[in-house]
Order: sequence, then structure tokens, then C-alpha cells
Amino acid sequence: MTQTNSDGAVPPDSEIARNASRHPIEDIADEMGLDETDLDRRGDGVAKLTWEAIRRQRNEPADGTLVLVTAMTPTQRGAGKTVTTIGLGQALARQGESSVVAIREPSQGPVFGIKGGAAGGGYSQVLPMEEINLHFTGDIHAVTAAHNLVAAMIDAERTHDDELGIEPDSVVWNRALDVNDRALREIVVGLGGKVNGPPREDSFLISAASELMAVLCLATDIPDLEDRIARILVAYDTDGEPITIADLDCVGAVTALLKDALRPNLVQTLEGTPAFVHGGPFANIATGTNSILANQLGLRLGDYLVTEAGFGADLGAEKFVNIVARNGPAPDVAVVVATVDALVKHGEAMLERQQRIQQADDDAGENHVAVVRAGCENLDHHVDNLRAMGLPVIVAVNRFPDDTDEEVRAVLEHCDQRDVPAAVSTVHRDGGAGGLELAERVRDAAESGVTSLRHSYDPSMPIDEKIRAIATQVYGADDVEFTPQARDDIETLTALGLDDLSVCLSKTPASLSDDPDEAGVPFGWELTVRELYPSAGAGFVVALTGDVLTMPGLPADPAATDIEVDDDGTVRGLE
Amino acid sequence: MTQTNSDGAVPPDSEIARNASRHPIEDIADEMGLDETDLDRRGDGVAKLTWEAIRRQRNEPADGTLVLVTAMTPTQRGAGKTVTTIGLGQALARQGESSVVAIREPSQGPVFGIKGGAAGGGYSQVLPMEEINLHFTGDIHAVTAAHNLVAAMIDAERTHDDELGIEPDSVVWNRALDVNDRALREIVVGLGGKVNGPPREDSFLISAASELMAVLCLATDIPDLEDRIARILVAYDTDGEPITIADLDCVGAVTALLKDALRPNLVQTLEGTPAFVHGGPFANIATGTNSILANQLGLRLGDYLVTEAGFGADLGAEKFVNIVARNGPAPDVAVVVATVDALVKHGEAMLERQQRIQQADDDAGENHVAVVRAGCENLDHHVDNLRAMGLPVIVAVNRFPDDTDEEVRAVLEHCDQRDVPAAVSTVHRDGGAGGLELAERVRDAAESGVTSLRHSYDPSMPIDEKIRAIATQVYGADDVEFTPQARDDIETLTALGLDDLSVCLSKTPASLSDDPDEAGVPFGWELTVRELYPSAGAGFVVALTGDVLTMPGLPADPAATDIEVDDDGTVRGLE
Repeated sequence: MTQTNSDGAVPPDSEIARNASRHPIEDIADEMGLDETDLDRRGDGVAKLTWEAIRRQRNEPADGTLVLVTAMTPTQRGAGKTVTTIGLGQALARQGESSVVAIREPSQGPVFGIKGGAAGGGYSQVLPMEEINLHFTGDIHAVTAAHNLVAAMIDAERTHDDELGIEPDSVVWNRALDVNDRALREIVVGLGGKVNGPPREDSFLISAASELMAVLCLATDIPDLEDRIARILVAYDTDGEPITIADLDCVGAVTALLKDALRPNLVQTLEGTPAFVHGGPFANIATGTNSILANQLGLRLGDYLVTEAGFGADLGAEKFVNIVARNGPAPDVAVVVATVDALVKHGEAMLERQQRIQQADDDAGENHVAVVRAGCENLDHHVDNLRAMGLPVIVAVNRFPDDTDEEVRAVLEHCDQRDVPAAVSTVHRDGGAGGLELAERVRDAAESGVTSLRHSYDPSMPIDEKIRAIATQVYGADDVEFTPQARDDIETLTALGLDDLSVCLSKTPASLSDDPDEAGVPFGWELTVRELYPSAGAGFVVALTGDVLTMPGLPADPAATDIEVDDDGTVRGLE
Repeated sequence: MTQTNSDGAVPPDSEIARNASRHPIEDIADEMGLDETDLDRRGDGVAKLTWEAIRRQRNEPADGTLVLVTAMTPTQRGAGKTVTTIGLGQALARQGESSVVAIREPSQGPVFGIKGGAAGGGYSQVLPMEEINLHFTGDIHAVTAAHNLVAAMIDAERTHDDELGIEPDSVVWNRALDVNDRALREIVVGLGGKVNGPPREDSFLISAASELMAVLCLATDIPDLEDRIARILVAYDTDGEPITIADLDCVGAVTALLKDALRPNLVQTLEGTPAFVHGGPFANIATGTNSILANQLGLRLGDYLVTEAGFGADLGAEKFVNIVARNGPAPDVAVVVATVDALVKHGEAMLERQQRIQQADDDAGENHVAVVRAGCENLDHHVDNLRAMGLPVIVAVNRFPDDTDEEVRAVLEHCDQRDVPAAVSTVHRDGGAGGLELAERVRDAAESGVTSLRHSYDPSMPIDEKIRAIATQVYGADDVEFTPQARDDIETLTALGLDDLSVCLSKTPASLSDDPDEAGVPFGWELTVRELYPSAGAGFVVALTGDVLTMPGLPADPAATDIEVDDDGTVRGLE
């Protein structure tokens, strides 16, 4: 049962998680039609599915409904997609549907950095929260190990005979660690003389940003994993020809390190709904959503598979439709999470642009209804995009404790006027009970069967045209400007025959445009593409529109300093 | 059943492991008096013990016999200590004893580098061999993650306000990865401007060399782990005062990352003998043996706990007696593994020194009996040392396929003349059946009850005297020479109040002396101590007598290139 403290506040996540009663994982599996032998146990309440179970499911029809939870352009506070995803899964289960939740694995970087845990929150969490937020089943560690083995192979090749003729400045494969560590962003390796060298500039990225993580989330079996690993481009030789992991002769070793990580991890939500927590790629330079294998299994084992994609719908949902759905199951229904916090931010920007108010601060502390209404334009943009992609869309207003009734009502009225089904969600405070109306809307949409997915581009289009399609149709840009570097990169990628891949656009999540300071719905702007590079194993070309930080840093007062362990092993301070 | 190929050779390790029938891990636990709820399952055939099971065992008497398997000065080929340890455990079980094996967790560095797997070999292996050699239960990954979190905290402190006043050149805490990667031995971090810096010289060590790994193997519960972590010295401030992990305010976070890794991992040998595979510290700058917790559990749950310590007895057994046994259970019986290969190497050196032969090569391809006899002097040195430490000693001649009967007989005769119990071991080829005579000798020694452990020094002695005691009594040096740097270091350590710790001497394993080219028993030499540093969390002072490579490199043709994965996930080439 959910309960609030004497002051009406929801207790800390870790307290809720600690006091939760968990079903044996065999019972969760049993509800899904799996038996004990299908489980490879990984600690209390956690199991990887066996290959036999995964293979057996291949023969079952994947006839469940895939619900993709995405968001309007979020603020720093976050929209609450993970909480909504878990809460919606719980709500569907309360309504008698067999629902399965699928989310990403938390990275230790943010857990010990700014963000804290990533296993949901309040009464919509996945359990065991502590294990999921720490090493869990070691999948991310496996990516780290595999990534760094490839790096060591590259430099060992350079130290020894270098038969591959690696051009030192062309090494695009860096090193990886699952930690927020700014000191590793730019480094020099191979110092100390001939035996360690030759030296070169290098960098570490956080493991979630490794192409191997993207590959893990897109591969559907071991041969597919192996093929993708083999294709990954790590450097160029002195003639400018690409060097791949296959050339390094360690595809088998890398596959051996990742084969168990490829199997989805089964856990449960606070209300006993089955949940796959599996994979965790970046949402800007990669797909930002959990593994295809987890989605496939959920759609075969349940009637509803609720999953999420990172950032706002312009990034996460676009990539889901144009990349993920080309490699695996496509969404049937989209849920766009809106928050009063985000609506106010975007509304202020819109009103300011319209000069209706002088200073955004004027409204501080007051009822923000007018601002909220103005902010709905950002929400509408995302809703319209998703409808244009052929998806039925539901708006979920993720209500925070400080939101007023008037603010929330304003959003619902706005959606009603535009004929967009909407529901308030209080799943953080109330668990599945706070998502019943949302679940109802989702079921209505699913049963209407109007989904007819339309991709934003055809992969056979030239790279610049594919980018233009996303920029104009999804972001609302007038056009795209390519820097000379970007033009060169497109030429190189085309010469390498990689021009028929999907495009993974890396853009700020804070704005629909490429300028993080432009809230609301920016207009009359051009997207600037600065640089492109191939993720040939993942099967897409990454186009950068700004600086991407692939290695976060620790803040002055990191979350790590709040964590304590009791003598019995209980961890405190992990929120 | 053991079986050999048509040519009489033992099949590859991975083939034997793959064809082995494994008991359910619950049955293995049951034999030890543990029940299913004491196990925290980590994949098929692997379990961590729960804290409840570990705590319950605290109340049981630790009355088993601890058998420490060590070796004469080994060659590059290795003496086969792990194989002997596992085989002896199996042999004792065949004789009706309840025996438990405890060994270290394999590091991925050597697995993909030169050495290959480290889960025993032939018919004396631990299972599941593939999992144990890859990520296993993630303990080493946990050490990597914890180690690098501390490093990130140090540099974040430097980037932000640096209230601790860290002197950049004094940072002694580096970074860690479980990979052989020479390019990471000497690096520069923090480049790219103020936001990433300030820059400084840094290095990566392989995770097994992390002080956190040493701490994990010495700590006996969570409070002890936490205390040791807090004491670890990471840098000095501008006044020369030490900065610890406690000062960085992340003791709780590091403990949270290591708390599960502290719990021993239960697996089984090929013959179903219970085995703990837990921890894996370096044998030169640390203790080189598995965790104390695993030993304690084995001694409570079984009549015999067979374990091993790294390198020859001058290093591994000395550290076990003088460091490990001061923090946990002490050995009751020592087994010294001898090989004809090593005896020939040392014999040649002895004969050459005595000018009885002109060229060692003269004997190549011939019967090496005379050389083997001469080489016994090295073996005797180790046997005498262990006897001086109060331990009953058994020599195990680990027979290789190319050893002749005459050579093996020569060793047995030599031991017989010196009244040292000895037995031939063929546990690689024959499993436990090849170690029955050895087991018999071990049981005789255990039942004789003559053990009366004598440490080589008292920790209250001055640091230089402790080193002199090891050098003269154990290595056979005439005296010890301290470089000016070493003298300075001793002064600093004494000023810091760390002079009452044990001493962990780092010396080449290839010779009894500090010169790796001096085989046999060198005489008339002085040990040169170059540098000292504290491992305050582990509780010892490390004294370096030569260069220590804490980050191995990959060879020109690494083991990684031999590994393949079948479509069903079976790994091949992991030997």
C-alpha cells in the first residue's frame, strides 16, 4: 500500500523500496508463462532469461501492444518518463491486463554524480532498487570490459608490428568507464617510452556512450551481435581505409564478453508487474532506449509492453521510430509526458517572444495558468509530430506536489480542445492507482487500432536529405546548414558506402532547436550540422549539431557523499 | 570420468569443462550443511553466500585443517599450484574427508593476454570454467568501479574548490581497469582546459593490483571493510599531510560498491568438491591469495580447506604467514609444489655455478637426473623456510607428460633422504585419483598436530628490521641495502605512525634473490630495497626491490584472438 508521511510527502525512494514486499521472481516469471528453468538467477529478485527461453519465445507471435512513453521538451528536473512508464505498467495490470515494463539499466555515473538512481521513484519503482542502481547483473561492466579490450588491442597492435598500418590521429575508438570523471575527457596515453607507446591523444567516454552498448540494444541474437561487433569501425589506416574490430581479430573475445549481457534481465515493479531492465545507451549519439530483445520478449509474453525513450519526443521517439523500429518492434501507442514545470518554462519563452509579458519573473509564485496555456505549444508540437508518424497519442500530465488544480486543468482543457486524449498521472505518489485513467486512454487507443507507422525518411535517401527530413518535419527547422567539416564527413561516409544507414541526430534535449536556450517552439531557425561519424555496428550515422559530452563530470557535492552502508549491508542515501 | 585422447593427451580444458556433469549448486551447499536460503544465486552453478549464512558460521568453531599450497621458485611455465590445490581437494574428498577448495578469481587481463584462464586445468578445474574466467560474479568489476570512483572524487575535488589542498604530484591513487593495456601505464589526465583539469601525470593499474582488492581479501565483515577503506591513503596535501578516502567523503559509496563482492562465491570442482573462488590480489604488492572470509567459511564448513598463495613460497607463503595469518586463519600444513621443469632450471644454474658443466645446453634432450638432483637445493630452501615457520611440509611433484620416471624418482629419493614427505601428483591428468598419495601425506601431517606457527618478525620491530628478517631468514640474503629514497620513505612512514604494520615485500618471483636471472639458490648477495609506500587500508607497508609492473601488456598474438563464440553462446578457445 502507498502511504505518505505525516506532512503528506511521499517517503524517500530507498525507504519505499526497503519496505516493499517482493514476490519471488519465479512467481513473476510464472505469471508470464515462463517456468523456473527459464531463469538464470542473478541474486535475490533478479534473473536473466536463458537462451532457451529466449529462443522458444521466437516462435510465439509478438502480438502485444507496444506503448512508447516519451515527453515534451523536458526541463532539468526531468519529465518523469521512467516513473510514468513503471506506473502505467502497474495501472494496466490493475485493470487486468498482462502488462510488462521495459526500461534502461541505470549507469553508475549519474548514480554517484548529480542525478542519483534511475529505477523510477515513489510508488512507481522497479525492485530490487539498490541492486538495479549499483552493479545489477553486470551488463554495463561487460560493455566496459569489452570496450577496453578493443582499445588495448588497438594500442598493442601499434606497439607491436602494426600490420594494419593504423594512422594514430585516426583512432576513433576511445576507452570507456562507467563513472563521471571529467579528468578522463582528454588524456594522452602510451607515455613512458617505446615499450608503452607510441603515445597518442585519447579520451574516455562513459560506458553508456560506447557503440557496444548501442549494439547490445539493437542485436537480436548472438550471430547478429557478432556481425555488428565485426563491423564496428575503430580507426583508419594510413591510406584512409577503415579498420574494424574484425581486422583486430577479437570479434570472438568481444562477443564472449557480451553474450550474457545480451540476455534481458527480469525484475518486478513495486506492485509485482514484470519488468525488463536491460541496456542503457545514450539518447543523443545512440537510441536512448532499452534493448530490442526485451521489447520482443515483453510483446510475446504480455498484452502490453510499456517502454520509454530518452529526452523529449523530438529525440527519443524520433530515434525509436526511425532506428529502433527498423530493427525490431514498432510502437503502437505513444504517451507524451507533460509537466507543469516544463509547460511554465516553455510558456514563459513563448509569451516573452510575443512580448505579452516584460519579465518572466513577474509571475513567480503566482498561478501560472496563462503561462501554462502558452507552454502547451511545445507539447502540441510533439503530439503533432507523433501523430504525423502515424501513432495514436495520449498526453500524461505527470502531476508534482506543487502543481495547482488550475494549472493541471488548463492542460487537460487544452488537450480536450485539440481532441488529444489526456489524463493526469499521480503514479509517483499513488503507484498504479494513480495511472488508471491514463491506462484507460492507452487501452482505448490500442483497441482503436489506428496505428499506421510512417518513418520520417527512407534510408536510401542521401545523408543530407535524411537529416533535412528530421530537422524540418520533426524539429520544425526551416532548413539545415552543414559546416565544411560536415560536408567532408558526408562525402567520406558516402565513399565508404555507409550512406544508406539511418541517421542518429545528436541535439540538445533542452530545446526543439539546436540552441539549448530556445524554449517553447522556436521558429525561423536553421539546424547546423557540425560533424558526422559512423556507428557502423549499430547501423547508423551520428550527426552532431553541438558539443556532446560523452563523459560527464562530478559536481562539487556529488551524490556519492550521501551514501552510507549499515553493518548488515543495507545501503542508505541512494535515491 | 577422466579420459585421454587417442594419443594419450589430456583434452583441452574447455572441452573437459564443457563435457563435465555438474551438480546443482544447492546439492554442493547441502553437503556443506548449508541450505538453499543461504545461497544468493549468480547464474547456473554459482552462488554468493548470504550475509545471514556468513554471520551464522561465525558461531561455529573454525576447526578444519588449513592446507596452504605453495611452490618452489617457479619457471615461466608455472608450477601448477592451482591445479594441485583443486586436485588435492578432490583427492581428500575421495578419501571421505569433507574438503573445501579456495582459490582466487581469474583476472580478464591474463585471460585475454598471455596466460589464458585460471580456473585450474585438465581434470582438476573449477566449474563453470567459462563464467569463472569471464565476468563471474562481477567482484573484480566492483573493485574497478570502486577504484575509479575514488579517482574521480580526487580530480573532482581538484577541479572544484579543492578544500583538501591536494598536492598534484603527490596523488598516489591512480585508476584501474581489468585489462592488459600497456598504453595506460603512463598517461596524462585532465587535459582540455580548466573545466577538465588541472592536468597531471597518472597511470592505470590492473584491478587485481588495486589496494581495494587487497582490502576485500583481508576484511572479515562490512564494518571492517568500511574501516579499511576509510584508512586508504590517496594523496598528500601541500603540507605533506596524508589525505584518505575518509577525507574524500566517499567511504559509504565505495563500501556500497564492494559490499556484495565481499561475500564469497561458491562453485564446485569437476568432481563436485565445494570450492570458493573469491578475490584475487597481486602476489608481489599484496597478499596473492583468496579472501580470508572464504578461508574462514571453508574451515568451519569442512574438515580441510585447501588454498594457495601466489608465486614461490618465499613470496606467497611468507606473506600468508606474516600478513594473512595475522588477520585470519593460519596454515596447518604446507604443500610445496615441485616440477621437473623448475628443478632442471635451478639445477642447471647450480651446476653452472659449481662449474661442473660447461654449458647448460649440453644436457638438452637427455635424461636430466643429475640436473634435477642439483635443482633440489632450491626446493630444499623453501621446505626449510616453511619448517622454520613451524609448518609440517609435504612436497608434491606435479608430474608433466614429458617428465621421465628417473627424474621423478630422483626428487622422491632426495626428499626421502631429507625426511620430507613427498608424493607424485597427476591431478591434471587423473583428477582427484592422481592426488591420493599426496592427500594421504597431508592427512598424516594434519593428524600429527605438530604445527606451531612462527612469524618471521614482530610488527613492532622497525621497518628496516622487519625487511631484514624476511631477506635473511626467508630469501637467504646476507643483508639488505636501502637506497636513499627507501631511507626517506621509511622515515616518512615512521613519522606517519605506519611503522608498526606488516611488510609486504615486492620481489621477482623468478629467483630467491632480487635478480630474476639468478636461479637455484643464490648466495653472497644483498637485497636492495628501492622504495616503500603504505597500503594503510590493507594494513601493510609495501617495499619494492625492483620494477613492479602493475599493468601488464598484451603480447603480439594475444589469447583474445583465439576465442570464438558459437551461435548458442558456447565459448571456444578459453584455456
